[in-house]
Amino acid sequence: MNSPTDFSAFDELAMAQALRLAHEAIGLSEPNPRVGCVIAGDGWQVQGFTQAAGQAHAEVMALRAAQDAGHDVRGATAYVTLEPCAHHGRTPPCCDALVAAGLSRVVVAVGDPNPLVAGQGIARLRAAGIRVDEGLMAAAARELNIGFFSRQIRKRPWVRMKIAASLDGRTALENGVSQWITAEAARADGHAWRKRAGAVLTGMGTLLEDDPRLDVRLVPTAKQPLRVVVDSRLETPLGAKLLQPPGEVLVYGAVPNAEREAALRGAGADVAFCPESGRGKVDLPAMLADLAARGVNELHVEAGHKLNASLLKTGLVDELLVYLAPKLIGLGREMAAFGPLTTLADALEYEFREFEAVGRDLRILARPPGRGAF
Amino acid sequence: MNSPTDFSAFDELAMAQALRLAHEAIGLSEPNPRVGCVIAGDGWQVQGFTQAAGQAHAEVMALRAAQDAGHDVRGATAYVTLEPCAHHGRTPPCCDALVAAGLSRVVVAVGDPNPLVAGQGIARLRAAGIRVDEGLMAAAARELNIGFFSRQIRKRPWVRMKIAASLDGRTALENGVSQWITAEAARADGHAWRKRAGAVLTGMGTLLEDDPRLDVRLVPTAKQPLRVVVDSRLETPLGAKLLQPPGEVLVYGAVPNAEREAALRGAGADVAFCPESGRGKVDLPAMLADLAARGVNELHVEAGHKLNASLLKTGLVDELLVYLAPKLIGLGREMAAFGPLTTLADALEYEFREFEAVGRDLRILARPPGRGAF
Repeated sequence: MNSPTDFSAFDELAMAQALRLAHEAIGLSEPNPRVGCVIAGDGWQVQGFTQAAGQAHAEVMALRAAQDAGHDVRGATAYVTLEPCAHHGRTPPCCDALVAAGLSRVVVAVGDPNPLVAGQGIARLRAAGIRVDEGLMAAAARELNIGFFSRQIRKRPWVRMKIAASLDGRTALENGVSQWITAEAARADGHAWRKRAGAVLTGMGTLLEDDPRLDVRLVPTAKQPLRVVVDSRLETPLGAKLLQPPGEVLVYGAVPNAEREAALRGAGADVAFCPESGRGKVDLPAMLADLAARGVNELHVEAGHKLNASLLKTGLVDELLVYLAPKLIGLGREMAAFGPLTTLADALEYEFREFEAVGRDLRILARPPGRGAF
Repeated sequence: MNSPTDFSAFDELAMAQALRLAHEAIGLSEPNPRVGCVIAGDGWQVQGFTQAAGQAHAEVMALRAAQDAGHDVRGATAYVTLEPCAHHGRTPPCCDALVAAGLSRVVVAVGDPNPLVAGQGIARLRAAGIRVDEGLMAAAARELNIGFFSRQIRKRPWVRMKIAASLDGRTALENGVSQWITAEAARADGHAWRKRAGAVLTGMGTLLEDDPRLDVRLVPTAKQPLRVVVDSRLETPLGAKLLQPPGEVLVYGAVPNAEREAALRGAGADVAFCPESGRGKVDLPAMLADLAARGVNELHVEAGHKLNASLLKTGLVDELLVYLAPKLIGLGREMAAFGPLTTLADALEYEFREFEAVGRDLRILARPPGRGAF
């Protein structure tokens, strides 16, 4: 890692632009990380960002742009938001491409947590005589890919729980009516967060009560997240809207039932089993591990008070994404049906990270203290 | 009213300073409005703000400051955040003092809603040949005294309901434990809002469960608000902390009980009756009218889910002051026990006015749409 003073204002602006580009890969590059690259030569700049899985990475996109524009990249500097890959995945290693292009310097925001890369990309660049500077805007670069870091390091997705509620914490009336507590702008914002996620997860309660589609409709997206149902006894109705296109569906069961499984598969869903021994319930940590193995970086939870409680009590929720509407409902459904606690010391503790008005509603982001550090 | 273009940058800065001064009268001038005054002469400025009731108003304080400093105020301009009074209350009319001092111009932020003043102050200034310009920073000046405007115009206090809750809307555990959900900084901020109020109101549930003092301790104040208990059957325990100094206590009953009344009076409380016919409960609108008649401009409510529900359902709450702690409690006490509603159209609607981090907690201000306009 370099110290901040090793970087010039030009470096900072170029890396900031690379980060903006990396954001363009949201909803596109999954399960690959979102990476942006700027290559700066004498009086010219080109740029690129990670394309869909199996297609070109950010560095290659930028090199192609330079070639298309007729720029000689020899001696130029590349700004990359994540360490260039050093392994053969579905595409050849980016660090080899940078070496072959004759760059003289590569500035890297943050190292790749993938054990197959983990410093090798930088080492190979340096071995080829390229100057590599690390650590410029590292926190923002890591944050943008916190799900990818989580999957690589913790072997589970970054779990973000979305809750829409009234100011008094009600997610629905007592009769189950919840459409709509928040307004259009907040719902569209919620879709933008779904779009970030590799998978959107819900439970049977929400499925039966709201029959949600859980796809990304209110914002444009290149791909739909996987839709996941926690459904211990494979009771997902075959007419559920969620089973309709677009996008894939995965049902996690706990109790085998060949007939129901065949019916769900016939309806287009994939079915996997993660039984918690002896309880007939889905083993949630095992499910998260399985989702990570399937390449899910960020898991977006939109569930009801019961599944929310199960995930929260077991500490599996990494972030709360709460929309509060400026209304009071009085008696009704709670955000999460755990407790009752006997002492306030047992309350689940978070730290607020952000408050923002979204239309007439309020969006709040909160995390358990220190949760982002892994 | 003048148009904004009638005012110079000097005018704006002088009035902004007068408004800052007016804020100094919070916790001091009740039941009088909070008023600030700047008098600007040739190369000098003096200032003043409303003192305790019966003592000098802002204009007189500024005139005295000019005299003390040896400035000749003839021909000077006064900036006053509220129309100078024209009636003999406990002090002589301020407009007469301004006329006698020989000022040439008075800039007024907003007219006085008091029917005893209502334009007469300005009329008398103009009749004496003084140029009067109105409407500079009128909204902020009115907002600072929204309780005074409410009492004068609506004949009831501005009712601000303070609620401290977890992010999932719980004000206490199911066993009633609520100390402390929010942290020290939020509690001190809550005391600053108590200090603004002419009275702090609670109900028997909170009194029996939390035994609160409801005084202003965590911030300095010149005077304590009146503490008010809604106590239909005069059941306030004689050992309640609230009955101890500092400050006065008023108990609103509905069912006469000579023995209990005498005991409460013996313990230092005042007792008043506002019975709702036939229900054995306190008539809340009548109670608010009575509080206004007693000079309460802003009423700060810190009650439990039952009294909160009664006030909210009847539309008597003008503003919500909500502190949300970054924690989840699960099952527990709700903010207000009304409902259950059968349709979301019946939810109580508000508009968010402000979000602010207070220590680790979040403060939210919300009002029913259009409520501030009266």
